[in-house]
Amino acid sequence: MNEGKIIFIVLDGLGDLAYDFFDNKTPLEYANTPNLDYLAKKGSCGMLDVLRPGLPPGSDSAHLSLFGYDYLTEYPGRGPFEAIGYGYKLQEGNIAFRTNFASVRRSGNQLIIVDRRAGRISGELAKELGESITNEITEIDGVSIQYTHTIEHRGFLVLSGDGLSHEVTDTDPHESGAPVLKSVPWANAKNHNAALKTATVVNKFVKATYELLEKHPINKQLVSEGKLPANIILPRGAGIKTKLEPFEIRWGLKPAAIAAGPLYRGVALELGFELIEVPNITGLPNTNLDGKFEYAARNIDKYDFIFVHVKATDYYSHKKDAKGKASFIEKIDKALEPIIESYEQGVTILVTGDHTTPCKYGNHSGHPVPILIAGPNTRQDSVELFGERYCTNGALHRLRGHHLMPLLLTYTGRVLEYGLRSSPYERIFIPKKEWTPLEL
Amino acid sequence: MNEGKIIFIVLDGLGDLAYDFFDNKTPLEYANTPNLDYLAKKGSCGMLDVLRPGLPPGSDSAHLSLFGYDYLTEYPGRGPFEAIGYGYKLQEGNIAFRTNFASVRRSGNQLIIVDRRAGRISGELAKELGESITNEITEIDGVSIQYTHTIEHRGFLVLSGDGLSHEVTDTDPHESGAPVLKSVPWANAKNHNAALKTATVVNKFVKATYELLEKHPINKQLVSEGKLPANIILPRGAGIKTKLEPFEIRWGLKPAAIAAGPLYRGVALELGFELIEVPNITGLPNTNLDGKFEYAARNIDKYDFIFVHVKATDYYSHKKDAKGKASFIEKIDKALEPIIESYEQGVTILVTGDHTTPCKYGNHSGHPVPILIAGPNTRQDSVELFGERYCTNGALHRLRGHHLMPLLLTYTGRVLEYGLRSSPYERIFIPKKEWTPLEL
Repeated sequence: MNEGKIIFIVLDGLGDLAYDFFDNKTPLEYANTPNLDYLAKKGSCGMLDVLRPGLPPGSDSAHLSLFGYDYLTEYPGRGPFEAIGYGYKLQEGNIAFRTNFASVRRSGNQLIIVDRRAGRISGELAKELGESITNEITEIDGVSIQYTHTIEHRGFLVLSGDGLSHEVTDTDPHESGAPVLKSVPWANAKNHNAALKTATVVNKFVKATYELLEKHPINKQLVSEGKLPANIILPRGAGIKTKLEPFEIRWGLKPAAIAAGPLYRGVALELGFELIEVPNITGLPNTNLDGKFEYAARNIDKYDFIFVHVKATDYYSHKKDAKGKASFIEKIDKALEPIIESYEQGVTILVTGDHTTPCKYGNHSGHPVPILIAGPNTRQDSVELFGERYCTNGALHRLRGHHLMPLLLTYTGRVLEYGLRSSPYERIFIPKKEWTPLEL
Repeated sequence: MNEGKIIFIVLDGLGDLAYDFFDNKTPLEYANTPNLDYLAKKGSCGMLDVLRPGLPPGSDSAHLSLFGYDYLTEYPGRGPFEAIGYGYKLQEGNIAFRTNFASVRRSGNQLIIVDRRAGRISGELAKELGESITNEITEIDGVSIQYTHTIEHRGFLVLSGDGLSHEVTDTDPHESGAPVLKSVPWANAKNHNAALKTATVVNKFVKATYELLEKHPINKQLVSEGKLPANIILPRGAGIKTKLEPFEIRWGLKPAAIAAGPLYRGVALELGFELIEVPNITGLPNTNLDGKFEYAARNIDKYDFIFVHVKATDYYSHKKDAKGKASFIEKIDKALEPIIESYEQGVTILVTGDHTTPCKYGNHSGHPVPILIAGPNTRQDSVELFGERYCTNGALHRLRGHHLMPLLLTYTGRVLEYGLRSSPYERIFIPKKEWTPLEL
């Protein structure tokens, strides 16, 4: 019997708005999803504010919150997850930034954004430009600099040294026509001097990339072809590498993850999940959906908790392709057969999104996401279909991301009543591996 | 296109209980409100705990919370808003109190409340009595005293000087037959000595008003006519003038307000709203409702956010006149035509109350208030009528006041995902005016 096991499925950017061309339905409501509807009917549904009402989650903070970590006090910022996701070994105290290659033009002594993604420069050219930065900028003001290009216009920057802080603002204004910004300490930075030192290094780094890239032969070639140059690197999303409490210690569940996207693998690794490798998963619409869910169902005997991440729902949202999204949701639903079997065998199944990405916006929004939890100990409600408007009337009502793990412990009979054990609130479960026998 | 604009309508004391004489409906449910129902049907509805469940908001803390300020840490107390609302220029550090003229009788060495509002003394007589206090009590123990009469039995008291604190208790027991209370420092006052000094000044002020007023010719005349004398002034609701972060800095929205009541104008001014002056608005049932909503619709091009306050719903609640309230709600609904047009043009419309004031109680209560938000990016739910019991089934479920501003930013596409920008949590929106361009 599997009455303690959990399969936790996150369909990235699942939530959406309703569209006229779908008869005023959302992509999820419009899609034909008999398996999701079956689970919705059997279990409890609701709406989930993954962080808090109105606040659009980033994918990293969203997953931390879904796994029961506090996005305010435990989220280390975007930068570290970018680096970790690409396999970079961050040291505690390292400051990491997400970066973009961008195209800028000079106006007086300011630099104006022409394109935040450098005309979506090819990965090959960006790699070569990136290597020149990696090799030539290795230290500023005694701080060690490690720039790494990842894919397309993207990369990350790691600063290491003493007296640094992640409490600095971004250089990327997030819009064209705006100036490249000066990084400054947060007004409420805990250590102003460390933040000032860090911001100064960041600003010098940005200027140095502009000087090097502006005269780089690749950019001269691009400009001569009438294309946009990748003539600056803009760091943003500063974060500090910290040590997060392992998921298994916090919740007493042995966890595994099935995910292709670097960010999701990075979050899972940081929390001590094992990665289950599935062939041909890509984080794209062509991913091996059948494989993901088959491997989850097949491996649930070996773990207590398997997280399955599907990325491409969000891919369609960012492309503003609601029909593609609905059609992909139907493909997911078809692939869920092994999960239905697991449910029938007593596994508790959770399906939700990490955030809403309305195809109308093409960006994450703060609308809540639909959620279903179906298992042997969930309450059945009146919801019979899985969709935003249906889940509104479900038994879960409107929850926050960090409520899910305690609920799942309750649904799997794994948690004792509050006060019965002497433990701080967050540690409602004390794993046996932390038991210390009394010795005579 | 207006798809980023917000009209934020607060109907004071809107929430209520159901009454037999309304066929078990509340005044809002009983009233015929086609325009409000239209918006409810188009948008998302819910119930709002403006502060927290069960805590009756004051009008000032309620509005702060609705505008996204923390009522626990950012609310400076009632006194300052009373003073500011009447145009008094408070200095930072000033301690302000709301005051009442009251009628007391002596009993031994105590003063017993006969009527907390001095028999609702006429404004003219109160003004003359007030001027005698203003002129004769100007300093106590080296602390500068400024008493100001406002309307009817109401006024405010401002203390200025060094070493003062707002952490002192009230002198008004809030019930007849009880003694006038001695102001004392809060048990947990941060600066006990400052609170003790302030309380001592307050107690001396109260005694001095009794001595002066008891022998005042106006009171002798009132007593000779068999009427209650206004023979004491009771300070309560101590607060300290602080600097609140401007609304436009916090939320990135250029705000304006349409309100007649001094308290609401005071809150708006403190947060940096511009006031839109509408002819013949009064804060009373005879106010120019058409003008309020017409001016809001007409001016939305110039602002991002227009707050419209309608006071008289609460007026009827305090009078325990449910039929008057229902009838006034119908008048409001008729005046909403320009708001419906704004909605059709893409403006996001929010309608709620600042608190429930059951006509049965005649006072604010902690029941949640109904809310609707309708705009191009709100989700439609199953609610088809605007009313307490209908909104219970809405997509917003049960929210808190401080959730509204982030939600409105999401609905108007104005907020980036968490973590994408490096900023402290509270500053999810960084207005451009705070940008510092990088200089070469």
